[in-house]
Amino acid sequence: MQNFDFYAPARILFGKDEEKRVGELLKPHATKVLLHYGGGSIKKSGLYDTVFSSLKAAGLSVVELGGVMPNPRLSLAREGIELCKKEDVDFILAVGGGSVIDSAKAIAMGVYYPGDVWEIYMKGRMLQVKKSLPVATILTIPAAGSESSGDTVITNEEKQLKYGYGAPALRPLLSIINPELFFTLPKNQIANGVADMMSHVFERYFTNTTNTDLTDRLCEAVLGTIIKNAPIVLNDPRNYEAWCEIGFAGTVAHNGLVGMGRQEDWGCHDIEHELSAIYDIAHGAGLAVVTPAWMKYVYKDNINMFVQFAVNVMGVKGSFRDPEGLILEGIARLSEFFHKMGLPSTLGELGIDGANLELMSKKASRIQFGDEYPLGRLKKLYWQDILAIYKLAQ
Amino acid sequence: MQNFDFYAPARILFGKDEEKRVGELLKPHATKVLLHYGGGSIKKSGLYDTVFSSLKAAGLSVVELGGVMPNPRLSLAREGIELCKKEDVDFILAVGGGSVIDSAKAIAMGVYYPGDVWEIYMKGRMLQVKKSLPVATILTIPAAGSESSGDTVITNEEKQLKYGYGAPALRPLLSIINPELFFTLPKNQIANGVADMMSHVFERYFTNTTNTDLTDRLCEAVLGTIIKNAPIVLNDPRNYEAWCEIGFAGTVAHNGLVGMGRQEDWGCHDIEHELSAIYDIAHGAGLAVVTPAWMKYVYKDNINMFVQFAVNVMGVKGSFRDPEGLILEGIARLSEFFHKMGLPSTLGELGIDGANLELMSKKASRIQFGDEYPLGRLKKLYWQDILAIYKLAQ
Repeated sequence: MQNFDFYAPARILFGKDEEKRVGELLKPHATKVLLHYGGGSIKKSGLYDTVFSSLKAAGLSVVELGGVMPNPRLSLAREGIELCKKEDVDFILAVGGGSVIDSAKAIAMGVYYPGDVWEIYMKGRMLQVKKSLPVATILTIPAAGSESSGDTVITNEEKQLKYGYGAPALRPLLSIINPELFFTLPKNQIANGVADMMSHVFERYFTNTTNTDLTDRLCEAVLGTIIKNAPIVLNDPRNYEAWCEIGFAGTVAHNGLVGMGRQEDWGCHDIEHELSAIYDIAHGAGLAVVTPAWMKYVYKDNINMFVQFAVNVMGVKGSFRDPEGLILEGIARLSEFFHKMGLPSTLGELGIDGANLELMSKKASRIQFGDEYPLGRLKKLYWQDILAIYKLAQ
Repeated sequence: MQNFDFYAPARILFGKDEEKRVGELLKPHATKVLLHYGGGSIKKSGLYDTVFSSLKAAGLSVVELGGVMPNPRLSLAREGIELCKKEDVDFILAVGGGSVIDSAKAIAMGVYYPGDVWEIYMKGRMLQVKKSLPVATILTIPAAGSESSGDTVITNEEKQLKYGYGAPALRPLLSIINPELFFTLPKNQIANGVADMMSHVFERYFTNTTNTDLTDRLCEAVLGTIIKNAPIVLNDPRNYEAWCEIGFAGTVAHNGLVGMGRQEDWGCHDIEHELSAIYDIAHGAGLAVVTPAWMKYVYKDNINMFVQFAVNVMGVKGSFRDPEGLILEGIARLSEFFHKMGLPSTLGELGIDGANLELMSKKASRIQFGDEYPLGRLKKLYWQDILAIYKLAQ
């Protein structure tokens, strides 16, 4: 196990009706709140009214910025930063899924950053943001885990770049998760969310770090819970108890815990980001295509890790004298699971042809911009490796 | 699943040499630190010097209070409160195991409480402490989980009462866990710690709440990790990797996560507290005696829960057509495990005869003081039930 620094201070208020308390919960921390949301579904569902009334009843001033789209745009974040400065906003409430929350975090750190907020995403680990507006969230799509993480991903639509950034200061102060708010999600959003949260665990689970009993078992606990309950919510979207499991699992998948002491991978996420940067596909759908291809390409580098995946996660039974047989059966079961969830399994199904594969591979490893930074850790992936994975996913 | 409020803000710095950074870590939060510790083993080991130098190098003033004993005493906490007031201490650093940390929390909240700190323990849930001095910890015994929890247990030695109290404000700001500091623990302390952390999971695992997939699996992950690694550290106390698992598991066992959304039990802890209040035995040793007796007494009230325990935690294989057979085998394996760890299995081995069993049963349910408050939740335990459990443990 490696040394680690675990910090997950976001308070999680979980269950029925919790969103009605948002005003009272924010009051000790806020005077003027930016209410940040997406395309208006929260207005149709009545959630907007609930939240607005609760904030007003608590005596808070409210400024609004809606219009966040999936793969949230840098341009809207810049607009939010200007708005917060102009209006002296001191708190951001994100009501939505990961895109809204990620956009809120971009705004929150951008308000205090002297330059353009995109610079932070460009500089990445070379810069640690220390100061940002406090953020709270009301989650409407369980997927990104952004409600407890310090991470944000933004798309620079002019440059067709999608970059992530993370810092402890970006962890939300509190997040409200009422699984009833998930009842009206369309099936494709449910499935995309499930693929995303599973990937958050996979990126941590697949590691060359040894002596990781506890986090191995925690990863398997989260994955097993998702694999059991995801088909239930897909087919019975008003099943509160199954949604509780998915909503809770999505948060635990990405609050950092299950990756502590491990070298994390993040190859699949980076490979997928290139797809959604150019083709604006759903992140989860892209992950469902990329992940099994990645597994097939890398498993020989750590046979034992992938045997464990097949047996402990995918429930494969069979001969341990044929480890590769177990592994390939495990990968096949994962593909079947994604298929059962209605997720795509090839780039073709995503409407992506071979035209940009080399370009995306070179962008992913940043060789396009000079020095190459290989992706992934379990196996280091140079641009030719990334290209091979894209080709396996065709 | 029940609604829940999860808040575990303690930052955990885990691994080799982390304690050397304590001064730098505390500096942004402290000017004058109370260094609180136990019987002097940290002086022998050199940890005291490391910590003191680090605090001094960071320019912090230090006031000292050593002498915390197992089952930490109210009298010392009162002394600490007066000292902190007199010296204008603004931060408490607890260097030790659960007793030192619990004592530090008593001092931390006592400084701001207008009455005697024991009143807080007496009032329990009727009072929520909002203000307390910030606490950091350097853990020397993995057991109590106090390094991440908001809980504290204190013994009022005059009244032979041992009461717990908990509030979010008591969660440590940060805790340093370097498993190398556990290398010199005596075998009985290792074993007692293991019994304590297992019990923290059991108290949450055994529940009548249904639809708890994720937390069931998380509990099993923590328990499985402990059961695998505890015998390793007992027999090879310089095994860093196994200690990492135990140290990490002890913290996850009690930061609240694995009990979220579940009705928790806490019957065994309350029954044990009566033993250590009168006989001053080690908490973990008491739990090792009480827990299997409690299981035998209550399992019929939730057969499915205990079948799950037998199969998923204790690894029992056998006929599901004989659920009681599975359960009794599971309980027997737990007793065997405790025995292998060198823990006692009867009250007699703890030197406790039958003289006070009825008195302790009546104290436990507080019927001695008027209205009876039954213990436990999976099965409500009135004083006659508690007496029956003590008798099963004889």
